[in-house]
Amino acid sequence: MIERFMVSKYKVTFLPEGIEANIPEGTSLMQAAADAGIQMEGPCGGKGTCGKCRVLIKEEKTEKPVLACKTLVQEDMTVIIPLSEVTLLRKGENDTHDLGIRIMPGIWKKSLTVAEPELRTQKSDLTRLYEAFGQVLPLTYTALKSLPQVLRPGRNPVTAVYTDDQILSLEEGNTENQLFGLAVDIGTTTVVAALMDLITGNVLGVASTTNSQNIFGSDVVSRIEHVINNPQGLEQLQWRSVQVVNTLIDELCSKADILPVNIYRVTIAGNTTMEHLFLGIDPRNLAPAPFIPVMTHPIELEAREIGLQINSHGRIHLIPNIAGYVGGDTTSVILATQVYDKPGIYLVIDIGTNGEVVLSVDGKMHACSTAAGPAFEGAHIKHGMRAAPGAIEGVVFNGDIFLKVIGNISPSGICGSGLLQAVQVMLLIGVVTPSGKLITRKEGENMCLSPSVLERLGSDKNGNYFILSYPENNREAVVITQNDVRELQLAKGAIRTGIEVLFKEAGITASDVNQVLLAGAFGNYLDKESAVFLGLIPDIPSERIKSIGNAAGTGARMALISDPLLRSASVISKNVKHIELSGRQDFYEMFIRYMGFDQT
Amino acid sequence: MIERFMVSKYKVTFLPEGIEANIPEGTSLMQAAADAGIQMEGPCGGKGTCGKCRVLIKEEKTEKPVLACKTLVQEDMTVIIPLSEVTLLRKGENDTHDLGIRIMPGIWKKSLTVAEPELRTQKSDLTRLYEAFGQVLPLTYTALKSLPQVLRPGRNPVTAVYTDDQILSLEEGNTENQLFGLAVDIGTTTVVAALMDLITGNVLGVASTTNSQNIFGSDVVSRIEHVINNPQGLEQLQWRSVQVVNTLIDELCSKADILPVNIYRVTIAGNTTMEHLFLGIDPRNLAPAPFIPVMTHPIELEAREIGLQINSHGRIHLIPNIAGYVGGDTTSVILATQVYDKPGIYLVIDIGTNGEVVLSVDGKMHACSTAAGPAFEGAHIKHGMRAAPGAIEGVVFNGDIFLKVIGNISPSGICGSGLLQAVQVMLLIGVVTPSGKLITRKEGENMCLSPSVLERLGSDKNGNYFILSYPENNREAVVITQNDVRELQLAKGAIRTGIEVLFKEAGITASDVNQVLLAGAFGNYLDKESAVFLGLIPDIPSERIKSIGNAAGTGARMALISDPLLRSASVISKNVKHIELSGRQDFYEMFIRYMGFDQT
Repeated sequence: MIERFMVSKYKVTFLPEGIEANIPEGTSLMQAAADAGIQMEGPCGGKGTCGKCRVLIKEEKTEKPVLACKTLVQEDMTVIIPLSEVTLLRKGENDTHDLGIRIMPGIWKKSLTVAEPELRTQKSDLTRLYEAFGQVLPLTYTALKSLPQVLRPGRNPVTAVYTDDQILSLEEGNTENQLFGLAVDIGTTTVVAALMDLITGNVLGVASTTNSQNIFGSDVVSRIEHVINNPQGLEQLQWRSVQVVNTLIDELCSKADILPVNIYRVTIAGNTTMEHLFLGIDPRNLAPAPFIPVMTHPIELEAREIGLQINSHGRIHLIPNIAGYVGGDTTSVILATQVYDKPGIYLVIDIGTNGEVVLSVDGKMHACSTAAGPAFEGAHIKHGMRAAPGAIEGVVFNGDIFLKVIGNISPSGICGSGLLQAVQVMLLIGVVTPSGKLITRKEGENMCLSPSVLERLGSDKNGNYFILSYPENNREAVVITQNDVRELQLAKGAIRTGIEVLFKEAGITASDVNQVLLAGAFGNYLDKESAVFLGLIPDIPSERIKSIGNAAGTGARMALISDPLLRSASVISKNVKHIELSGRQDFYEMFIRYMGFDQT
Repeated sequence: MIERFMVSKYKVTFLPEGIEANIPEGTSLMQAAADAGIQMEGPCGGKGTCGKCRVLIKEEKTEKPVLACKTLVQEDMTVIIPLSEVTLLRKGENDTHDLGIRIMPGIWKKSLTVAEPELRTQKSDLTRLYEAFGQVLPLTYTALKSLPQVLRPGRNPVTAVYTDDQILSLEEGNTENQLFGLAVDIGTTTVVAALMDLITGNVLGVASTTNSQNIFGSDVVSRIEHVINNPQGLEQLQWRSVQVVNTLIDELCSKADILPVNIYRVTIAGNTTMEHLFLGIDPRNLAPAPFIPVMTHPIELEAREIGLQINSHGRIHLIPNIAGYVGGDTTSVILATQVYDKPGIYLVIDIGTNGEVVLSVDGKMHACSTAAGPAFEGAHIKHGMRAAPGAIEGVVFNGDIFLKVIGNISPSGICGSGLLQAVQVMLLIGVVTPSGKLITRKEGENMCLSPSVLERLGSDKNGNYFILSYPENNREAVVITQNDVRELQLAKGAIRTGIEVLFKEAGITASDVNQVLLAGAFGNYLDKESAVFLGLIPDIPSERIKSIGNAAGTGARMALISDPLLRSASVISKNVKHIELSGRQDFYEMFIRYMGFDQT
């Protein structure tokens, strides 16, 4: 008898969705969840240090908390994934509003009536096609192969789909009004795609989902490390990136009732690492100094090259990167704001997993990337979470602490805007000092703080903390720790230093700025007064500060429906002067200064 | 118990090579031979009518003749394939002589020293590459992906391989002197490829092999029918066409000790059907009137599109077709002769499986295709064979018939040039009448022919015949039948009619012709006097008739090493006026006239 070695498989059930999967023995629960199609947070990249992947294993009478990244499947099991960890499928609004742009997508359809074959002239299919088309353009191999079928008698009209340099495909009948495009913003955390009608310029739908690369770490450095440490890493990350977009294409096309094969143009805005990974281009040289990207020029390629499920000859355009940590997303933000074309001084801040800052002085631009980290997205903050139901998004002091919670439910954590307001309040009531120290209850008593404040102050082995919401039923307390305040200081100090360095490079001061534009999801929720109060933003009147939402996505949409604007993006990426902060002598001094709250 | 249905396999041994193969029950011997890598003739396309695929099955004490196309494998068997049927791997000569052309292959290599990465500027890999290259050209996706590996410190120099519009690849080190190309002549019967050095213009090797599509029929119409009648037919034919060229690439590269990945440019000359099939483009509309090709424009595509085993981004150029039956091979012949650029009147005749005729009057060109059929290649001739050992290639009368046999062995058949001389002799001695009738022995006796001639005359149920060589040991007699004479009349009548129609179109006569150029293998062996005597060629002094060998192959080589000449090929294909013979009122009258031998 021949015995075979087989890996046992176990049934793992994930609650609350009730998704079941057969998982090979020894797989981590985080990988098992990924295999089951469930996306989980993994900021530390499976090192077991961030604690964000905590799940509950259902046992007979109880539930045992474990880290999904460190727990291996050894038996049939039922796993409860906490609500806040489940993929947040936030849908973007369906903004079909006019972007005010002339629609020139650089790709066209033309319905043709092609002459019938005749014996006298014996003109080839291609000759008759060109005569009807009025121009000789190379065909893709696919279009060439389709000719004898498409051009047979009685098949007129046919519709040619073409760019400046190629006929991409030939469609039977008149399909002139069916031409679609996709504008994609690939964030480190979230991927957002807009399906657009390239004839009308209308947005037909917007969908977003978590970037499923997150099982390999929440930040770009973890992902680059994954590439460096795993022979298949680059392939895995590219596959996930492309599949995430394919999923969004499926969803958008089925909702809009169009065929993906009619999508012929895609614009992609992402940070430099995301753009590299989407193309499967090795980003390893981005991680160590001198932080060299493979490409900062515009890249165009056919969908089939990377397996994007649109028309195989559809053109994918990557909005060009500026530098290793100032990516195509920043170029796209600049495009959306159109500051490159405007007189005046504009400060553009995009706060995502990092913080990119652009200063435009009469269209002359400087940009830098600040290692702000993902504090404003909730990472590295003890009870940090993204702006999802249960997140504290506002904190007010009126004799006692009052909270504004998303969804008006019991608070389970705090998001970026909540964190800013919390620390502002804590500064104002004196529990945080201008240097960022969180006082003990004892110190609070010496300062004669009110009992309702005093009872919120506590200490444990990790240091002092401040209770925002007390434990309740199954909910833990939500607290701000000394460490959280430090994380905020690092983040806001980094961004503010970036701003001040750019001011210095351009020889201007805060009072010269005509407008501050805050891009990114966080910018939308941000309380402008808090941001100025805490020194994240220089002292600029709040009426000059404006949130512009997902400007990277807007820029990608503009470039999608306008080829001239796509070309502008190339010009932008070339003209922006990148300022590397880490190489500067004045950086650390400024950084230490702006970490404090003293200037407020 | 589960029983499975399985197809039995049998061992088939092919002699004389001793090749063994396991063949599923019910497979035809012709298919079995193909599966074993042996290429056999199949002019009738497996209909069992041509008898060309006759093989011997070795039995205990004897050998049983059968048709390979009609015999199925039902048991282990040993099959003897007659020598004349075995693939004739005739090697072209290694003509490294200068074609007298400036080498400008439209593809270049440039060795670059790319600047090292640096922190201050953080220039991307692509930016530094472009700075070294001195020009911004799009990269193939492959080249882009290779950048981070190729450009790391210490890797200089790198070599860019590029065309006018794209950088195809980046190679480590200085490989400027390694750039190769392939010129291919895809004939219906034989495929010839020349490996060329694109730096020096030298021919590094020439190889040829049978077009393995021949198992689906020997002529283009059989192959088109195969496409029409079989859902997988087009795919099968394309696969064979590409595989044949891949085999030649393997052979040439291993002999020249170069890597196929260093081949970056290929030119293909073939008749219209062969070019369609090579690209997998449906040729079905070529068969019925109005004989419409898919393309007569130049086609360029990447090797990877069709699986040609050279550099995946190497460029394949098809020499453009002129009409449905005047293909890229004719364009290539015109290019090789350069008549398009010469004052004077030139008649170019390419006799292959069909006969294409081109007339150039001070560079103004007309062309037609004549349905000459493959008589000159031995098909449809009772003992016809190609110019291989054992073929009668010359016939002389000096009191009796004397034969010249290739290889100086016993004759086993007759090739095209032998057929022409045989019929010339038969006309001269009176056994064939000017109308083409082969007389009976009785009629010969009445004409008082000599006994040695009389005894060669015979009759059977298929009509009269004339014995060229008597049976000897195991060899059959070689005879010329009445039907063979008729086949020759049809073939030469067709070509001559084509010539006369072109003369008429151009308003010239035979005496105006400065030069007759005979292209194709047959043209090399052709006895000029016989050709004129029999009326295949008009009465033109033989010093004005010149054989130019495989001019289609020469044209492909010229276009390979000179992109300007490739462009000339496009101009030629556009400027040649195609004359369709079948649609003309004067055609049949002329055809009947030129079938006879009266004009001689």
